[in-house]
Amino acid sequence: MSSLYVPPPKCLEKRFVAPQRHMFGPGPSNVPPRILAAGAEPVIGHMHPEMFEIMSDIRSGIQYAFQTRNKVTLAVSGTGHAAMECAIFNAVEPGEDVLMAVNGIWGERAAEIAERIGARVNTIRTPAGSCFTNEDINQALARHKPCVVLFTHGESSTGVLHPLDGIGDICHRHNCLFVVDCVASMGGAPLYMDTQGIDILYTGSQKVLNAPPGTAPISFSERACEKVFNRKTKPVSFFLDMSWLANYWGCDGKLARIYHHTGPVTNFYSLRESLAVLAEQGLENSWCRHQEVAEYFHEGLENMGLRLLIFILQNVRLPTVTTIVAPPGYDWKEITSYIMKNHKLEISGGLGPSVGQVLRVGLMGCNSSKASVDMVLEALKDALKHCHKSRV
Amino acid sequence: MSSLYVPPPKCLEKRFVAPQRHMFGPGPSNVPPRILAAGAEPVIGHMHPEMFEIMSDIRSGIQYAFQTRNKVTLAVSGTGHAAMECAIFNAVEPGEDVLMAVNGIWGERAAEIAERIGARVNTIRTPAGSCFTNEDINQALARHKPCVVLFTHGESSTGVLHPLDGIGDICHRHNCLFVVDCVASMGGAPLYMDTQGIDILYTGSQKVLNAPPGTAPISFSERACEKVFNRKTKPVSFFLDMSWLANYWGCDGKLARIYHHTGPVTNFYSLRESLAVLAEQGLENSWCRHQEVAEYFHEGLENMGLRLLIFILQNVRLPTVTTIVAPPGYDWKEITSYIMKNHKLEISGGLGPSVGQVLRVGLMGCNSSKASVDMVLEALKDALKHCHKSRV
Repeated sequence: MSSLYVPPPKCLEKRFVAPQRHMFGPGPSNVPPRILAAGAEPVIGHMHPEMFEIMSDIRSGIQYAFQTRNKVTLAVSGTGHAAMECAIFNAVEPGEDVLMAVNGIWGERAAEIAERIGARVNTIRTPAGSCFTNEDINQALARHKPCVVLFTHGESSTGVLHPLDGIGDICHRHNCLFVVDCVASMGGAPLYMDTQGIDILYTGSQKVLNAPPGTAPISFSERACEKVFNRKTKPVSFFLDMSWLANYWGCDGKLARIYHHTGPVTNFYSLRESLAVLAEQGLENSWCRHQEVAEYFHEGLENMGLRLLIFILQNVRLPTVTTIVAPPGYDWKEITSYIMKNHKLEISGGLGPSVGQVLRVGLMGCNSSKASVDMVLEALKDALKHCHKSRV
Repeated sequence: MSSLYVPPPKCLEKRFVAPQRHMFGPGPSNVPPRILAAGAEPVIGHMHPEMFEIMSDIRSGIQYAFQTRNKVTLAVSGTGHAAMECAIFNAVEPGEDVLMAVNGIWGERAAEIAERIGARVNTIRTPAGSCFTNEDINQALARHKPCVVLFTHGESSTGVLHPLDGIGDICHRHNCLFVVDCVASMGGAPLYMDTQGIDILYTGSQKVLNAPPGTAPISFSERACEKVFNRKTKPVSFFLDMSWLANYWGCDGKLARIYHHTGPVTNFYSLRESLAVLAEQGLENSWCRHQEVAEYFHEGLENMGLRLLIFILQNVRLPTVTTIVAPPGYDWKEITSYIMKNHKLEISGGLGPSVGQVLRVGLMGCNSSKASVDMVLEALKDALKHCHKSRV
């Protein structure tokens, strides 16, 4: 028996201290001290009245950030992927047709998730870095007659901000729910859930909101609720079942709240604080700042002779995450490593369709400032000077 | 358009400060300052080398806490319910037979989860507060021929610690995986994953480990991996798919790690710290302390004339969560409210089959001390003196 004994691991004897880094990749972004401090408040019960008040504050904050008056608005106890699953698991029943708009990695992910639950998955595709026209969408809806269509507002793998105006109306004419992933865009670009007719909208805590990863705001329109709460089958996940979650968050109109799962109490503290910061600064100010900073950044990059993946004329550059065409002759990995090592600054390579093609820089929330831009430009100049360059 | 504008919510202008409370319910328990502080370290990337080192430390810590050498050991990015889904989603394919041992709420939950993914769910049942004999189990396995059987080690709804010795062998003779939920027991009662032949074991961060809720340690035996990694169908959840998670955690033997989801970075910091505390104190010391403190508590309760739901002669009292028969003549809700209000101390009512029947007191991790017991006994005495008592 003693040979079976697993001793306490030595590695845990060392105290861990996290390094200070400029988190300028596509997320997570830096978390300001006031949000970190909120997350270190003492833990209370997940069903204490004070917790319900915090959750109610979070709901109000999300309603503001999403520009919605939807009752069924809450934060999923997980990261963006959990919210994507929550949206699809609840809105789609096995055998139903869905349409995933694929112009980067997130549409692919959504398609994979819908396939797993037995939906009939249709896709419309356009090359990574481009967008769909409303006419494309209209035709696809007429052809596939899906009950749900999903678009990615901020495609962080390609740096595209997909226009949303008009799509809601088209979806509703085709009796279809309009689902939007705004993980990488929310707070960084104009978004009006109600006005734009979005039926399900979700984001993550660790991008513009500057909270630690672990919670994911989500909201359901009345039209979405009509479908979600009148399903023939139960969603595959109990953990993500909206009829339970809506009750836990006090948005199903019932007085009594029933224990569902233990919410991540301290992550809710920090999410609340991050929403408070956004409310303080003002949503429109945040949108404008991200846009201005992005333009300043893009100009600086072009002045250095670097090219952006998304042409300015396309008018769909994502202000939060910039995709820079990988400098010819360089190994992109050497550049990101050099910058991490010498500038304690994270920028990242591509993801999905953009792997090997681009460098990605995320300037989100508190990181969206001209000072951050100057830092990134400095680091890039330094890297291009010192990293190995082959003849092109 | 302006009438559609959702203004910033006033409620977020107020700064939130969490009250200090003695968290003596069935969880979450108090989080010591050193673990809260670890969770407030600066956020780094979910795929930075330092993060992989932290995740490797966490794996070692879980291997120690579970007493296992399983390679596939990691923490799910969610609470205990997510781990329960992770176990069932990965181990069970649609149409397969499972057997859920129901002696309280957790077996019911597991059954519900398995049903949702299209498993053929069989149950064995014994009244809440009792256990199964190995002969019961042997017969049920022979009858139902399940591929997976799930037991709850610490039934926090009833206060029962289910004996585990011998069940692993029985399961394996019947070619069945032995899954154990140790959310409420891990660290508080002896548990030897490898020696006891457990194939999948999971717990939560917010009980004996004293970390905030939001992560859930889980481990898979080689026998479990054999099944999990050779499925005919993909698990319904991408977020909880072990083939992705095992790669993300560096336990699939592959060199390159592929982006799956953004892990809850700061929750991993605090989970690591909580495992370091356990390793420092020693697992056996922790088991002994929980047992001694529980006995001291139970004696104190009986000296007050209170009855425990689980008879001492059954020899299956859970040391972490004690179920006290609701004092006759009192409204249990008045007692818990009185104690919260006057002693800033949480104890809770029943759950599932024990609703209305019991008071539940959890003394876990740093709360497992004679000082905490004295505090609870004092509070209970005070409540019984001041709360309304009808004639019995």
